[in-house]
Amino acid sequence: MARKLIIDTDPGVDDAMAILFAMQSPQLDVIGLTTTFGNVCVERATENALILAELGNSTAPVAQGVSVPLQMPPKPHAEAVHGDDGLGNIHWPASQRKPLSLSAAEFIIEQVRTNPGQVTLIALGPLGNLAQALTLDPQIADLVDEVILMGGAAQTFGNMSPVAEANIFNDPHAADQVFTAPWKVTMIGLDVTHQVLLTNTRLMRIQQNNPKIGDFLYRSAQFYIDFYRNLHGVDGCYFHDASTIAYALDPSLFKVEPAAIRVACEGIASGQTIVCPKGMSFPEPHWDNLPLVDVCMQVDSERMLDLFEQTLSQTQ
Amino acid sequence: MARKLIIDTDPGVDDAMAILFAMQSPQLDVIGLTTTFGNVCVERATENALILAELGNSTAPVAQGVSVPLQMPPKPHAEAVHGDDGLGNIHWPASQRKPLSLSAAEFIIEQVRTNPGQVTLIALGPLGNLAQALTLDPQIADLVDEVILMGGAAQTFGNMSPVAEANIFNDPHAADQVFTAPWKVTMIGLDVTHQVLLTNTRLMRIQQNNPKIGDFLYRSAQFYIDFYRNLHGVDGCYFHDASTIAYALDPSLFKVEPAAIRVACEGIASGQTIVCPKGMSFPEPHWDNLPLVDVCMQVDSERMLDLFEQTLSQTQ
Repeated sequence: MARKLIIDTDPGVDDAMAILFAMQSPQLDVIGLTTTFGNVCVERATENALILAELGNSTAPVAQGVSVPLQMPPKPHAEAVHGDDGLGNIHWPASQRKPLSLSAAEFIIEQVRTNPGQVTLIALGPLGNLAQALTLDPQIADLVDEVILMGGAAQTFGNMSPVAEANIFNDPHAADQVFTAPWKVTMIGLDVTHQVLLTNTRLMRIQQNNPKIGDFLYRSAQFYIDFYRNLHGVDGCYFHDASTIAYALDPSLFKVEPAAIRVACEGIASGQTIVCPKGMSFPEPHWDNLPLVDVCMQVDSERMLDLFEQTLSQTQ
Repeated sequence: MARKLIIDTDPGVDDAMAILFAMQSPQLDVIGLTTTFGNVCVERATENALILAELGNSTAPVAQGVSVPLQMPPKPHAEAVHGDDGLGNIHWPASQRKPLSLSAAEFIIEQVRTNPGQVTLIALGPLGNLAQALTLDPQIADLVDEVILMGGAAQTFGNMSPVAEANIFNDPHAADQVFTAPWKVTMIGLDVTHQVLLTNTRLMRIQQNNPKIGDFLYRSAQFYIDFYRNLHGVDGCYFHDASTIAYALDPSLFKVEPAAIRVACEGIASGQTIVCPKGMSFPEPHWDNLPLVDVCMQVDSERMLDLFEQTLSQTQ
């Protein structure tokens, strides 16, 4: 039986890669998309999620979620990275589909309650919807199979500050709630995603093998690749969000280290995922007696990119 | 001409090692000790500084400094690490010497003004005295030769929290002021001091070669070594404060990396030295246009310990 996923997302060029990767994987069953602000505003994220569900030939419904952080004033969206439309300024035609009337958090709770122990939450943006679901119904922590999230930086530098990664930075209070709740969380942060570069060579092969989705992915990725080329001088884009789907398909691609995580919510460290590895303790008690998060620290980059390319190259 | 040092200190077993190391070095001229709270309360720090000046056969005067952090509520002192007397519970007889009536900050300003460009400040504790001196007379930043401080953690774990080292944690606002002032600062933090273990074998050889000082050092170190043995299972003590003196004598022992540093002053990250390496920049602007600190990242451990042992083994 295919593994049930709800993908919480702010599409986003790399969110699009992740969503289509999941929808193309027969081992995975995307039972819904929930949207959040982040790369774009939540309304745009919802429009894009509807486009992606249709493009991915999926019946997954879309539920719109939070539009601002739980407690902080909102930060600017990342149009400079993902384009004004969030999909690399390709201005894809709007879908005729409509979102659910349920909120993202309500949809998550409903699905988790209906499928106890069977739903994996994939989180690709700021974590407000997951936090809100936990607040509305704390018992879902026991009923979710697993949370796999893209965000944070354990030992490496952040991308918003030396210590903060954008998804966590955009709603640190929500992230702190998600990391400290009693459910199984796997964090895929910049420690691994900055090790993996998706090149145009691979995207062009996908485009050739699977014209409909491949053409969308290739065109959508160009603005995003330009951003990374200008910023880091690399010829490709980092494989942020789609890494979560690779993990759901094959966790053996990654090396994880268990750790307690708290998120700094104040001052210049705001958005930092402060990691206390299993077995370490400190006079400051904030990391004591917390559930352990699996922190991805290494990845087999080529094998992961091969899996992505092969999966996306299949025509449905 | 010997290099003029003022040592700002909270003795402290490893402060004692640093102070006697400096006083035994003919290339260095300790022109004063200034005291701060930290390992012990400031009054005890002053008593211990007077003992150490006398033991080191030095005429260096002692000026007492701040007793609490600039802005934070005070934290407990570190008697569990250094003993109730700060010198490993050896209860050394008090010195008959008396401290100056000048405050630590006033003494620093007076000496720097009297010897422009010639005074190196060695800081072994929380940085309130240096910050206070900068506030009273900002121009001293131009007139100090160099600041060499023990504190912080760049890439490694802290010792108070996963990200905070004790000296910085004890007064983060003072540290932030010192790191961002326009003077040359070298930071020797846990990245290097946790690479260096001073063993009893070396201390016993010093004791044999230089009975007066060596006996004091050996006896004083036992409580401190027990602390590390119990905490980390190592057979010796980390070479925290005395590393600054080794740096003053021979910077080639260290590999440094230039970086802008800000100190987190709030929340669970409080006391973290957030390092932005030269050449990196981030959307968050807090590290832009700051003076660069030389951050020690590697050390030739054996060569440094040899220098310490040889210097302390000389009878004066």
